[in-house]
Amino acid sequence: MNTQIPKQTIAILGGTGKEGPGLALRWAYAGYPIIIGSRQLEKAQATAKELNERLGFEAATGLENADAARTADFSVLTVVQSAHQPALEGLKDALQGKILVDATARVDFRDPKPPAPPSAARTAQDLLGPGVRVVAAFQNVPAHVLKKNLGQSLDTDVLINADDVEAAKEIIHLAEAAGMRAYYAGGLDNAVVVEGITSLLISINKHYGIKTASIQVTGLVEVEKKEIPV
Amino acid sequence: MNTQIPKQTIAILGGTGKEGPGLALRWAYAGYPIIIGSRQLEKAQATAKELNERLGFEAATGLENADAARTADFSVLTVVQSAHQPALEGLKDALQGKILVDATARVDFRDPKPPAPPSAARTAQDLLGPGVRVVAAFQNVPAHVLKKNLGQSLDTDVLINADDVEAAKEIIHLAEAAGMRAYYAGGLDNAVVVEGITSLLISINKHYGIKTASIQVTGLVEVEKKEIPV
Repeated sequence: MNTQIPKQTIAILGGTGKEGPGLALRWAYAGYPIIIGSRQLEKAQATAKELNERLGFEAATGLENADAARTADFSVLTVVQSAHQPALEGLKDALQGKILVDATARVDFRDPKPPAPPSAARTAQDLLGPGVRVVAAFQNVPAHVLKKNLGQSLDTDVLINADDVEAAKEIIHLAEAAGMRAYYAGGLDNAVVVEGITSLLISINKHYGIKTASIQVTGLVEVEKKEIPV
Repeated sequence: MNTQIPKQTIAILGGTGKEGPGLALRWAYAGYPIIIGSRQLEKAQATAKELNERLGFEAATGLENADAARTADFSVLTVVQSAHQPALEGLKDALQGKILVDATARVDFRDPKPPAPPSAARTAQDLLGPGVRVVAAFQNVPAHVLKKNLGQSLDTDVLINADDVEAAKEIIHLAEAAGMRAYYAGGLDNAVVVEGITSLLISINKHYGIKTASIQVTGLVEVEKKEIPV
């Protein structure tokens, strides 16, 4: 960690749920200032306080979602699917000129089935317009996995989808900072497959009586040997 | 290999393309009698002859598709998407009471994009009716990988989808006989995700300048330690 250069600020929008605090903890631990965003300022501040207590240092503050998005360098949206569209509508102005990471999981754990195109991230891009660079990531990473052993790398591969490859590279860097391997896996339309992988993992876990099934990308040995282009 | 018990016969329907002969070679090498099916008897017989020459022993014969399906214990459909529905219509009677493995890949390599539900295998099940047990498998395994080093295990995970878990178990056994790890990953609807993974792999290969990207299931350590329920 280079402590000379201040790290960029990450807003976790809809960050008072399960997934958001997990990501926030990992980035805070890696030295990134965090803003927890919520529709209600008090809830955002309460979650930020909890995170700081868990961390043992002051890394997180709380703001309303649009203020959080406006203040941060990167925003990560971690709302449930039913809140996806209204949240985006309220964030459209604040996100112009920025990167939005959409982590929306569209598979219902109680009734898992593969979602149809378009992906959540494609819907977000269409709604936000070309002034926002949308990146899909982290839809499959369980919150309980993120919250454990903050300093350790996770045995988790994150598939990153974006139409803008440069934006994807920035998020690959953030994922790696949070202890995950991350790979560029095509444009925003491909994110529907990543969403659907959740449905496969739920089925595998159920059939084999485990809770730990996960998907890993292999065959990249050639990449690791040469300079990785990300 | 137990040479005392004759192995079950596998028909590769639409087996004169690229994928079919690859699977046929591996099963023939493992001791399974193979029937290559085609719309044209002569083409089926020619492919069977080529396979026997490659193998150095007589394992494959050629028949028209419906005759192949009627004669075999298991049938594996390896047609391109445009031939999927007409092939199934011609096979409906012959397949009653049997298991059909649908290996149809719905992603076009030149214009890869995630397919929408329903999966090819769900379409097949609807068309064939409840008298046929459809299993989705092998949609992502490249033909060139199958054709190399026949006696060696492949570093490939096959995701198996079927509404009938007992049928899935039989195909998991066949996949393992062909040198692949195979896992049950839910019902036929989930197969659309497996189809879409091809789109992710094409994007990963293109971005990283490789040809070897593949998806592996991890987190099954617990399963390997205890008795695997398949």
